[in-house]
Amino acid sequence: MSGNTFGKLFCVTSFGESHGPAIGCVVDGCPPGLPITAEEIQLELDRRKPGTSRHVTQRREPDEVEILSGVFEGVTTGTPIALLIRNQDQRSKDYGNIAETFRPGHADYPYWQKYGVRDFRGGGRSSARETAVRVAAGAIAKKWLAERFGVVVRGYMAQLGPIEIPFESWDEVGCNPFFAPGASKIEALEQYMDDLRKSGDSVGARINVVASGVPVGWGEPVFDRLDADIAYAMMSINAVKGVEIGAGFESVSQLGTQHGDEITPEGFLSNNAGGVLGGLSTGQDILVSMAIKPTSSIRLDRRSIDRQGGPVIVNTHGRHDPCVGIRATPIAEAMLALVLIDHALRHRAQCGDVLTATPRVAGLAPNGVQPVPSPGQPARG
Amino acid sequence: MSGNTFGKLFCVTSFGESHGPAIGCVVDGCPPGLPITAEEIQLELDRRKPGTSRHVTQRREPDEVEILSGVFEGVTTGTPIALLIRNQDQRSKDYGNIAETFRPGHADYPYWQKYGVRDFRGGGRSSARETAVRVAAGAIAKKWLAERFGVVVRGYMAQLGPIEIPFESWDEVGCNPFFAPGASKIEALEQYMDDLRKSGDSVGARINVVASGVPVGWGEPVFDRLDADIAYAMMSINAVKGVEIGAGFESVSQLGTQHGDEITPEGFLSNNAGGVLGGLSTGQDILVSMAIKPTSSIRLDRRSIDRQGGPVIVNTHGRHDPCVGIRATPIAEAMLALVLIDHALRHRAQCGDVLTATPRVAGLAPNGVQPVPSPGQPARG
Amino acid sequence: MSGNTFGKLFCVTSFGESHGPAIGCVVDGCPPGLPITAEEIQLELDRRKPGTSRHVTQRREPDEVEILSGVFEGVTTGTPIALLIRNQDQRSKDYGNIAETFRPGHADYPYWQKYGVRDFRGGGRSSARETAVRVAAGAIAKKWLAERFGVVVRGYMAQLGPIEIPFESWDEVGCNPFFAPGASKIEALEQYMDDLRKSGDSVGARINVVASGVPVGWGEPVFDRLDADIAYAMMSINAVKGVEIGAGFESVSQLGTQHGDEITPEGFLSNNAGGVLGGLSTGQDILVSMAIKPTSSIRLDRRSIDRQGGPVIVNTHGRHDPCVGIRATPIAEAMLALVLIDHALRHRAQCGDVLTATPRVAGLAPNGVQPVPSPGQPARG
Amino acid sequence: MSGNTFGKLFCVTSFGESHGPAIGCVVDGCPPGLPITAEEIQLELDRRKPGTSRHVTQRREPDEVEILSGVFEGVTTGTPIALLIRNQDQRSKDYGNIAETFRPGHADYPYWQKYGVRDFRGGGRSSARETAVRVAAGAIAKKWLAERFGVVVRGYMAQLGPIEIPFESWDEVGCNPFFAPGASKIEALEQYMDDLRKSGDSVGARINVVASGVPVGWGEPVFDRLDADIAYAMMSINAVKGVEIGAGFESVSQLGTQHGDEITPEGFLSNNAGGVLGGLSTGQDILVSMAIKPTSSIRLDRRSIDRQGGPVIVNTHGRHDPCVGIRATPIAEAMLALVLIDHALRHRAQCGDVLTATPRVAGLAPNGVQPVPSPGQPARG
Repeated sequence: MSGNTFGKLFCVTSFGESHGPAIGCVVDGCPPGLPITAEEIQLELDRRKPGTSRHVTQRREPDEVEILSGVFEGVTTGTPIALLIRNQDQRSKDYGNIAETFRPGHADYPYWQKYGVRDFRGGGRSSARETAVRVAAGAIAKKWLAERFGVVVRGYMAQLGPIEIPFESWDEVGCNPFFAPGASKIEALEQYMDDLRKSGDSVGARINVVASGVPVGWGEPVFDRLDADIAYAMMSINAVKGVEIGAGFESVSQLGTQHGDEITPEGFLSNNAGGVLGGLSTGQDILVSMAIKPTSSIRLDRRSIDRQGGPVIVNTHGRHDPCVGIRATPIAEAMLALVLIDHALRHRAQCGDVLTATPRVAGLAPNGVQPVPSPGQPARG
Repeated sequence: MSGNTFGKLFCVTSFGESHGPAIGCVVDGCPPGLPITAEEIQLELDRRKPGTSRHVTQRREPDEVEILSGVFEGVTTGTPIALLIRNQDQRSKDYGNIAETFRPGHADYPYWQKYGVRDFRGGGRSSARETAVRVAAGAIAKKWLAERFGVVVRGYMAQLGPIEIPFESWDEVGCNPFFAPGASKIEALEQYMDDLRKSGDSVGARINVVASGVPVGWGEPVFDRLDADIAYAMMSINAVKGVEIGAGFESVSQLGTQHGDEITPEGFLSNNAGGVLGGLSTGQDILVSMAIKPTSSIRLDRRSIDRQGGPVIVNTHGRHDPCVGIRATPIAEAMLALVLIDHALRHRAQCGDVLTATPRVAGLAPNGVQPVPSPGQPARG
Repeated sequence: MSGNTFGKLFCVTSFGESHGPAIGCVVDGCPPGLPITAEEIQLELDRRKPGTSRHVTQRREPDEVEILSGVFEGVTTGTPIALLIRNQDQRSKDYGNIAETFRPGHADYPYWQKYGVRDFRGGGRSSARETAVRVAAGAIAKKWLAERFGVVVRGYMAQLGPIEIPFESWDEVGCNPFFAPGASKIEALEQYMDDLRKSGDSVGARINVVASGVPVGWGEPVFDRLDADIAYAMMSINAVKGVEIGAGFESVSQLGTQHGDEITPEGFLSNNAGGVLGGLSTGQDILVSMAIKPTSSIRLDRRSIDRQGGPVIVNTHGRHDPCVGIRATPIAEAMLALVLIDHALRHRAQCGDVLTATPRVAGLAPNGVQPVPSPGQPARG
Repeated sequence: MSGNTFGKLFCVTSFGESHGPAIGCVVDGCPPGLPITAEEIQLELDRRKPGTSRHVTQRREPDEVEILSGVFEGVTTGTPIALLIRNQDQRSKDYGNIAETFRPGHADYPYWQKYGVRDFRGGGRSSARETAVRVAAGAIAKKWLAERFGVVVRGYMAQLGPIEIPFESWDEVGCNPFFAPGASKIEALEQYMDDLRKSGDSVGARINVVASGVPVGWGEPVFDRLDADIAYAMMSINAVKGVEIGAGFESVSQLGTQHGDEITPEGFLSNNAGGVLGGLSTGQDILVSMAIKPTSSIRLDRRSIDRQGGPVIVNTHGRHDPCVGIRATPIAEAMLALVLIDHALRHRAQCGDVLTATPRVAGLAPNGVQPVPSPGQPARG
């Protein structure tokens, strides 16, 4: 139940500091018999890794993953899967002044107050570098969800600073450095980011994630609702300040007749619920949207204090993403996959194996209500 | 670790259906020696209970709580505190048709698919009635937080449908049936709700909650961040579709120079972080905002299906809140209090008792950075 | 994860004090669709309840159970099942002197040191009365295990003080007040207990529990081994001081050629393992044995101290079992059933539903190795 | 909550197979500020490592530990501590035939039935090699317990096969290859083991562990009793078949006047309780004893079956301990230390920091009841 373990049944225990010897995780509870290779995990890590375009940090980390256990002759054995990523490009000298001062917007100050000691090199444990292990663990979850249920988890950038990015096609997401679901705004995004980088400032973003093919009934009714666990998962990502499911904050001004998704024998007629009712999946697409704050590490002058409480001016050089949201899409996908596999296993524990179940009640078959096709209308898209 | 237990150390296990014999909970892990009475818990329950104005459901439930264990001679003993609320006003005949059909926007359909059986009377387990036990448990948490740390947890309605409610004063919150933090919009709210009730429709709302006096350093750095657990807690409340911490979704379009809260020897200069950095409390006010969807049970015609998959028209009579957000404020406060006490205990476990700790490092004392006074500027308020 | 919750997926949260208003529990995670009634649970409670013979406490408690939630139209719904047992026969005046002194062998002293406050009436939370709720929860577990897997969980008294009781027949267990598996020693037991009662002293006992029909593969390999969780479960019962699986302490002086159970195509040739290898069930009978210490509350003079640390002589009148082991058999059965259902669900979560699985490897079918019939040779028998 | 994680607050997640690339663990929840080095951990590992005498396996594993995270400038930071031990001496060819047959007394058969796949090389996950990481994690726990509370955790071999080893002195334990607490039996043990090795058979053992200096009140009253968690911890060690606390199975035939430990102003007069009453520590020595079965891997012929269910004769060559109990003492110490630190943190969470607490009640100070000196009379000693 430690704070660095995610999940109840498919458990990911994360470790490592940005400039320590390594980061990694232990994945416990994975179903046996799943074919998985380091190469497959690497593909997901490469989507998140730094240095892939001029718009992200230039730290050179290959993020090469080693499987230490739990996989034998190419398949999972049901025992813990340990994943190890050695840190390579630590330039701790870049960060020397962090030891004595607290960067505004950073975890420096509460870490020091909480623990009385902190590994300040490159942000230590609070660095976004930690999220690489989530992506690695998420790759295993994604594969199992896809193989067993046909679930597909995909995300994209929906807004960068002032620029809203309309959803055009999933196919475009992998074709640009922003995870933008369309080509129409790429030029504007490039220009905006170039200007921003020159200014020394940073900016926020909105990321949307969608899970398709989720069977009806995953989740728990009261506290561990599927949407509650999704909110927890997304808000646990560095820099996330808000989470929405389905209509999200638009629900505030909606009427019941607008919000409540009607059902017909052919399926739901809308998806304001975002695929979750009463904490349980409905069989429609799970629609999640999140707000990512601007990077705290900027090279412009900011007021702060030092460890003695005296006033200082802080400006953070070194290698930082001017928009951490740009690399957040694979992380958000991974977290959604981790929530889903965990609830898939929890559901199977209590209610049995959905694949082999015969309909419990005559008439409507499980999953009989067809979801509305929603590629063009994800969360707030 | 069951889905109906909230918290890791201060654990609330909830039970009960809307129209069964009783609802209640077991609170385990409460520190010993806390003076608490059923009357104190009742005060919080009375803030949430139905029937207090014409704008909420007219179900007559006194929500009278009985303490079954864990309190001896007026103080907690450290053993489990069981709280019992007998249901009184069950009119199951009002809900008879629910057995065969699925109300749009309701948990009916996924419950039936998940479990193959459901207690449909009054929504059963998915009824908002379940939240009464959260309020009861939260009353204990609130008292301990106040007595031991001076933490105060307060909430208010920030928006009802199209009507934004500016923050004027905490004192006003208890003086109107909407938990509105000011008198200026009460007339408009009354009028809006009267019209809405006549129309048969329902509407959403935004609730803000603020915790003041939280010491620096509560939370966990990676998954069980304080803000992640808050997001989980709030999203676990019926009808919540979005959660924000601090600047929330405004972060998307903010620059780093706007968002990052500067620090001076006198304290933080703003609170876009909402009192949480790197998953840990900063000593500033914790600012939380949430979106509540319109009530799904409305008496207007809605398309749906029956258990055989055939088309039906559903309209839900019976006694329902036209805006469930109206009674949500005490629930949201309770959930925030439950998160905070849990992390207070977790912090004490790992790092020792903050009240008796001497400063770990020379210079700045623990909690030395003073929070910006923020009563007038809570989350998005 | 609170200390009063048992199980990871089939979770029993216990509450209540011996002389408070009630005891009870919440059972969360129960599979839906299980037919269960209060009467069925009552049958198990009646096996444990006080006052059924002159050899046990004469406290008059009907231990009548009420189902508050989670069961609808006679079947479990998958939501929490709350069970309530009101206390009836509290004679707190019997225990008045307990407030100021610490009974030797009792939890009085460490409770007071831990919490600074304690409900001393009748032992409060440390009373064996708490075990009634385990029996109630265990009744649900037993039924599910029997219905779904044909698992049968049975126990008996193997020794009372100096009298060893040979296993003769399961049928005899319910025919005498000692849960003795045979008639040959009943007269000696009656005589021994009558003498003991007159002397004012108390005595220990050994209880054996056997689970038959457990499929191969339940359990976890490393920490949460099936046998480790059984040891935890049994040692959590009041007064238990030792637990054995299979050959138990006889293993100390065994050779490998004696201990290791050989296998033939017809099945295992012995069961020193007690049905567990590497933390996983083997398909053979699960054999558990436990030591129960003599009742601490005796009416003979014992030296102790009072709250001021001064010397006192304590003798405990009131109504106590001279051998708590006599009523322990149903409790031990319940705890074993709770461990088994929890691991059944955990296994199903990770590995799928065993009932529907086809053999994973050609040749030997799941459960293909037949267990040795072992009714006559349970643990240490 | 995964099966490979030990502890609720001080959490050890173990991974690795005997002949995979590495074994290791993540320790989460460690208090910050504890000075710890790889060298200190190595000292404990060296006590357990193979190849130190002719009586244990001759596999050459230096068991060299690397700290990957959570320690900065020589002290713990409060973030996860990852420990890595690379496997060096894998001779998988020694174990080739294991793939097709099930060794009697081994986990081979239930692993295969549970998972449908298993890493059979050297026993894979079921190898006692996994216990090295427990020793490494336990080294951290031991140091914190000693530094903060003066708790000392020590163990010894009390019996090997037929040879009982009387307790003479703690000082002798480190002076012989058996962890025997005295010199008088060493010659007999050497002779017995030499004969055993020649015979090709194996033998069991009894290990005792004692924790001294444990404050009063650690533990939980009902399920997560201190003794219940100890039983779970010990039974989770490979080959353990029985666990006793204090008088253990001798309680069965004891009278209440014999068993119940009397108290005087100077302290307890005996320790049949083994330092635990009502699930809570009493301040006396915690006395634990356990039975270790004979090694299953022996080179003598044993009947078994192959994967097709056909009869085979199995004899296991390769490098194995003829008595796994010989190296078990450091493992048992580590497990007891892990239970104690976990409950120390749980106690601090709920009841505050015992070191800074003033006596809650006038008169007797916390820990005021002095324990009986018990070095010469540990469990069953």
